[in-house]
Amino acid sequence: MPQNDAQTLRTYSYLGPRGTFTEAALAQVAEAQGQNWRSVNNVGEAFSDVANGVADGAVVALENSIDGGVSAAQDALATTPGLRIMGEYLVPVDFTVVARRGTTLDQVTHLNGHPVAYAQCRRWIEKNLPGHTHIPSTSNVAAAANLLESDVADAAIAPPTITEHYDLEVLAEHIGDNLNAVTRFVLVTTSRSIPDPTGADKTSFVAELPVDQPGALLDMLEQLSTRGVNMTMIQSRPIGDELGRYRFVIDVDGHVRDERVADALMGIHRFSPRVTFLGSYPRADKTPVRFDARYDDDVYIEARDWLRGLISGEPDAAY
Amino acid sequence: MPQNDAQTLRTYSYLGPRGTFTEAALAQVAEAQGQNWRSVNNVGEAFSDVANGVADGAVVALENSIDGGVSAAQDALATTPGLRIMGEYLVPVDFTVVARRGTTLDQVTHLNGHPVAYAQCRRWIEKNLPGHTHIPSTSNVAAAANLLESDVADAAIAPPTITEHYDLEVLAEHIGDNLNAVTRFVLVTTSRSIPDPTGADKTSFVAELPVDQPGALLDMLEQLSTRGVNMTMIQSRPIGDELGRYRFVIDVDGHVRDERVADALMGIHRFSPRVTFLGSYPRADKTPVRFDARYDDDVYIEARDWLRGLISGEPDAAY
Amino acid sequence: MPQNDAQTLRTYSYLGPRGTFTEAALAQVAEAQGQNWRSVNNVGEAFSDVANGVADGAVVALENSIDGGVSAAQDALATTPGLRIMGEYLVPVDFTVVARRGTTLDQVTHLNGHPVAYAQCRRWIEKNLPGHTHIPSTSNVAAAANLLESDVADAAIAPPTITEHYDLEVLAEHIGDNLNAVTRFVLVTTSRSIPDPTGADKTSFVAELPVDQPGALLDMLEQLSTRGVNMTMIQSRPIGDELGRYRFVIDVDGHVRDERVADALMGIHRFSPRVTFLGSYPRADKTPVRFDARYDDDVYIEARDWLRGLISGEPDAAY
Amino acid sequence: MPQNDAQTLRTYSYLGPRGTFTEAALAQVAEAQGQNWRSVNNVGEAFSDVANGVADGAVVALENSIDGGVSAAQDALATTPGLRIMGEYLVPVDFTVVARRGTTLDQVTHLNGHPVAYAQCRRWIEKNLPGHTHIPSTSNVAAAANLLESDVADAAIAPPTITEHYDLEVLAEHIGDNLNAVTRFVLVTTSRSIPDPTGADKTSFVAELPVDQPGALLDMLEQLSTRGVNMTMIQSRPIGDELGRYRFVIDVDGHVRDERVADALMGIHRFSPRVTFLGSYPRADKTPVRFDARYDDDVYIEARDWLRGLISGEPDAAY
Repeated sequence: MPQNDAQTLRTYSYLGPRGTFTEAALAQVAEAQGQNWRSVNNVGEAFSDVANGVADGAVVALENSIDGGVSAAQDALATTPGLRIMGEYLVPVDFTVVARRGTTLDQVTHLNGHPVAYAQCRRWIEKNLPGHTHIPSTSNVAAAANLLESDVADAAIAPPTITEHYDLEVLAEHIGDNLNAVTRFVLVTTSRSIPDPTGADKTSFVAELPVDQPGALLDMLEQLSTRGVNMTMIQSRPIGDELGRYRFVIDVDGHVRDERVADALMGIHRFSPRVTFLGSYPRADKTPVRFDARYDDDVYIEARDWLRGLISGEPDAAY
Repeated sequence: MPQNDAQTLRTYSYLGPRGTFTEAALAQVAEAQGQNWRSVNNVGEAFSDVANGVADGAVVALENSIDGGVSAAQDALATTPGLRIMGEYLVPVDFTVVARRGTTLDQVTHLNGHPVAYAQCRRWIEKNLPGHTHIPSTSNVAAAANLLESDVADAAIAPPTITEHYDLEVLAEHIGDNLNAVTRFVLVTTSRSIPDPTGADKTSFVAELPVDQPGALLDMLEQLSTRGVNMTMIQSRPIGDELGRYRFVIDVDGHVRDERVADALMGIHRFSPRVTFLGSYPRADKTPVRFDARYDDDVYIEARDWLRGLISGEPDAAY
Repeated sequence: MPQNDAQTLRTYSYLGPRGTFTEAALAQVAEAQGQNWRSVNNVGEAFSDVANGVADGAVVALENSIDGGVSAAQDALATTPGLRIMGEYLVPVDFTVVARRGTTLDQVTHLNGHPVAYAQCRRWIEKNLPGHTHIPSTSNVAAAANLLESDVADAAIAPPTITEHYDLEVLAEHIGDNLNAVTRFVLVTTSRSIPDPTGADKTSFVAELPVDQPGALLDMLEQLSTRGVNMTMIQSRPIGDELGRYRFVIDVDGHVRDERVADALMGIHRFSPRVTFLGSYPRADKTPVRFDARYDDDVYIEARDWLRGLISGEPDAAY
Repeated sequence: MPQNDAQTLRTYSYLGPRGTFTEAALAQVAEAQGQNWRSVNNVGEAFSDVANGVADGAVVALENSIDGGVSAAQDALATTPGLRIMGEYLVPVDFTVVARRGTTLDQVTHLNGHPVAYAQCRRWIEKNLPGHTHIPSTSNVAAAANLLESDVADAAIAPPTITEHYDLEVLAEHIGDNLNAVTRFVLVTTSRSIPDPTGADKTSFVAELPVDQPGALLDMLEQLSTRGVNMTMIQSRPIGDELGRYRFVIDVDGHVRDERVADALMGIHRFSPRVTFLGSYPRADKTPVRFDARYDDDVYIEARDWLRGLISGEPDAAY
C-alpha cells in the first residue's frame, strides 16, 4: 500500500518496522492510503516529524485496554505545541511467543518484548516463565527480529503475523491476558481544521490543576458534569516540576462545536492555569453520543437569547 | 413630601397609611421624591397598581431580619408577569406597645398587631402577655389607630412615631426581639431598563426545580458555585399545585452584566423548567461585591476568544 | 370526641375554636382520641403548653401547599428546646365566603380572614374583591364568628362547615386557588422516644450554616446527597441576629435508625454549628421510601465491618 | 550492608543489580539494615517473592516526578491479594551517559536505558541524539553493564555511581529533564499490622468505579472532599476487561485511624464495587498533615455520641 513517490505524496510517520500494530492502525487511516509511510524508531521521533514538517501526520498508540496510557505519547501531546488529533483507530491485540528454531519453552530464561506487550501478557508470563529476565525491546517486531541477530534473548513476544516475515518457531499462541484487548491509536497532525461533527465524536484536551489543594480535581470535573458532558478517559500525568503536581489528559464525548462541550471547555479554560485543546474527531467505534435533552444545542441557544433579551431590555416573551 | 398633582407626576404605591415602615422606605427612594404617593390597603393591591399601570412603582417589604420572607410579596413577584426590582432600601425596625389612656399592661388580654411585627416581638410578648389573644392587623399604624375606634383590642404594637399622630399611652418601648433589626424593602416597576452596574449590585430571580428528585436543588446551586457566584438569600416557596413542589426566590451578589452572573443565569435557565429574572440593582448597603479573580470578566472574555479561535481554526496563541 | 375528665386524661392543645382545620387534624391523631382537647388562641400558646407540661402534645400547621411554611411554628420548633415531632397529618383545604344575612358580594369592602387562608384564596379575592381591605383574624372560625359580634368586616373566609355552627349566608364556595390543596399538621411532644421505623418515614431537623460563604448551603446539602438521602422540604428561616443569616428547616425521607439517615445526620452535625433533631415519624401518606440499593443498611454495616477488620489487623476476606 | 546469613535474617527483594536507585531506597529502610537483600530481575518477581513468602518485604518504585506512575507496580498492588505498604522512601534522581572507552557522543546511534530513565532524560536526548534508536533495558545498571558485553548499544543512561563499578567513559552528566527529580519507593509486605499514626501519614487504596457513567469519578472523589480529606496522588489504570474501564490508585493525607480518613474509606467502600486498602504509613518527608479543625477526631466522636443519644432516647444536652 505505501508508495515511495515522496515528492507529490503526503508522509505519515509510524513506529516501525513493517508488521507492527502501529502499521495496522495506519492501514485504517483513509487519507493515508497510497501515500508515503515513514517507519521511525521511537514515538518521540514520530512526534518530531510532525512538529518539524518532515511528516504530514503520525499514527501513535495512545491507550490500550491492558496497559493504560502510553505515557510518552500522552506527554508529547501535552507538551509539544501545535499538535492535533484528527482521528482514532482500534487494533485488536493478539500475541505469540516465538524463538529460534529448536528452542523449547523450558529453555527460555531471557524474554524479549516491547514493555507494553510484556505488560499485556503478564499473567501468562508469570505462570509459564517465572524466573525469566525481561529484555525490553523498541517494538514487537524488533523483539522477534533480534532473535536472529543476537542471543541476548531466547524468545520474543510478537504479533501472530511475525512468522510471515521471519523464520521463527511458535512456542505459544494467544498469550494475552485479555483475548478481547484492543489498542487505541490516533492520527496526529498540525492542521488547524477540525473534522466536522458526526454525532459520534470525541474531544480530547490536557489541563493542569490550579493548585495542589483539596478538591481541585473535583472542581475541574464539575465543569464537565454541570454541562452533562461524559468523560470517557482520564489519565493523570506528572507535570515534572515537583512530586505531586499533575496534569490530566481527558477525553469526553461530543464535539467542540456542540454547545455543551464548548461551554465545558470554556469552563475548564477559566479554571485551569493551562489547558491544551487536542482535537475533536469521530469515534473509532462510530457509537452515537447520548446525552440528556436538557444539554441540547437548542437549550443553550435559547438560554443565550433569553439573556441577550434581558440585557437589551426586550419585553418578556409570553409564557 | 408626597404631592397630589397626579397629572404630571409619577405615582408610587405603598402599604399605608402614613407612618408605616413602608412609607419610611419610600422616603428613601430618590426618584419618588416630590411625586405622588398612593397609600393602599394590602400588598396585592400595590402589585396590581404596578401591573395595571395605576402606579409607576411600588415599594414592598421583601425580607426582614426576624420574620424572613414576606410570603405574599415573594409570591407576587414570582407569579405576576413583567415585574422588575429597581432598588432596595433598609429601614431600622423598632416597636412600642400603645393603649388607650388609662390602660395598664396587666389589663391587656387582646393585642392588635401586624403579623410580621407580632413575630418580631415574640419574646417580649410571650414573657409579658402569656395568655393574650393576637388580633392581626393590616398595618402597624392601623393596629394603633383601631384602638380609638373599637375595643376589640386593648393594646397595639406600633412604630415609635405613632404618638405623633394618635393620642395613645406608651406601655412599653423597644420590645423587638432584636434591637438591630432592619426590614428590606424593594422598589418594583415594569420598566425593562436595568440600572447600570455599580460594583455593589444584587441580582434576584425565581426558579423552579425540574423534578422532585434527590439532589435537584444541589444541582441548581452548583450552577452558581461553579461560577463563583455568592448567594445572599434563598427562600423556598410552594408552587401550589401539590405538596412538596417548590420554587426558589434567590438573591446573588453581582449584576447581570457581570460575565459570571450572566453565565450562571444561563446555566439556571437551562436547568430550570421556569426561571424569572427579577432584576439587577444597587445594594442598599453599597458594599462592593468581592469575588475570586478567576471569575473576572476578563477571564470569561479570554475563554470565549480562545474557543472562538479553536473553532475558526486560528493558529494557537504563543504561550 | 374530646373529653373533660382532665385528671386522668392526656391533654392536647390546638388552635381553636372548634371547627378549625387544626381540630380536623387533631381528630386524625389516634392517641388523642377520647383525651382532653385544649383550644388555644395562638400557635405560641400551643407550643408553650407542651414546653411547660400543661399539655402532653400539640397539633400545629407546619406547611401547606399554597402558603408554604408556617413561619411561627417553624421558628418555635427551631428555638424551643426539647420539642419532638411524633406524627404528621394532612387535612384537605376548602374555603367559603360568608357574611351577615342580607349582605351581597358587591357590598364587601372589608374581608376578615386568617392570613394563611387569605393567601390561599388570593386569586379569587383579587378578581372578585379588588378594592377590599384585609382584616387578619386569628383563626378561620374566629373570622366568621366575628361577623356576628362586630361590623369591622363585611364578610369572612371560613371552612365549609362554618354554617353548621353560625347563622351566616354563603356568598361564594370553593374559592381556594388550588382545589387539591392540603395542609400538613404535626403532633409535637417532649417525649424522647422515637416512633419505630415503618419503611415509610420522614425525619425532620433544623440546621444553621457555618458561615455566610459561597457554597455553604451546597456543602450542607451534599451531606445528604452523598448518602442518597432525599430531601422533601427545605425552608430557610432568618436566625434573627442579622440580615442574611439563615437556618434551614429540612425534612428528609427515612428514619434516624436507617443507617444512611444516621450517617447523613452525623455529617450535618459535624458541618453545622447548631443542629436540632426534630424527630423521625411515619409519613401521613404512608408511601414507602425508595432509595438506591447502594445505601441499604447492609451496605453500611458491611463497610463498618470491613474498616474494623482493617484496623484490628484481621486477614483480608476472600473476594 | 546486606548479609548472607539467610537462615535467621529477614529477606528483602529489590530490582537489582547492586547500584540501582531501588537499592538506594532499600538502604533507607531501617528494618532492612543488616538483613538479607535479594536482587531480582523485574518488579513482578519482587511482588511474587512477597506474595509467596520467599521475601519478607520488597522495595519497588511507585511514582516519580517525571515519568509518573510505574504502571506494573501499581497494577501488581491492585491485583495481588494481601499486599500492604509499610513505608515510603524518596531517592534523588540523577543521570549520566556512559559509553565504552573511546566512544564520542556523535558516534552514538543506539542508546540503552531503562524506559523510566529514558523518559526522565527525554529533553536532553531529543536535543543531543535526535536520530537514535532506544534499546530498553531492565535496569539502569544493566544498561551500562551491557555495554561491556554486547555492541547492541553505543551508550547507556546510568546513575552517576556507575563508574565505581564499571570501566566506562562519561559522555554527559546531569542529563535529567528536572534536576530536582526524586523517585518514590515503597516497602511492600504481607503484614496485617498497620504502623501507628505519627501525625504525618499517608493512606493508599485502589478503587474501581461502579459504572462508566457521567460523574462517577466525581461522586467518588466527593467521598473524600466531604470529609476534608486531601488527595495527594491519583492514577487511573485500566481494569483490563474492556477499553474505558478504570480503577484508580489513590493516596490521601492521613491515617486509617484518623476518624475522617476512616469515614471516607467507608464511604468509598459503599460506593465502589471493589476497593483494596493498601496501607497507612508515615510520609517520607515527615510533613505533618494539615486539615480543617472541623474534621478533627473529636468532632466525629461528638457527632457519634449525639446520634447515639438521640436513638437511645437520652434527654438533650444543654446548649
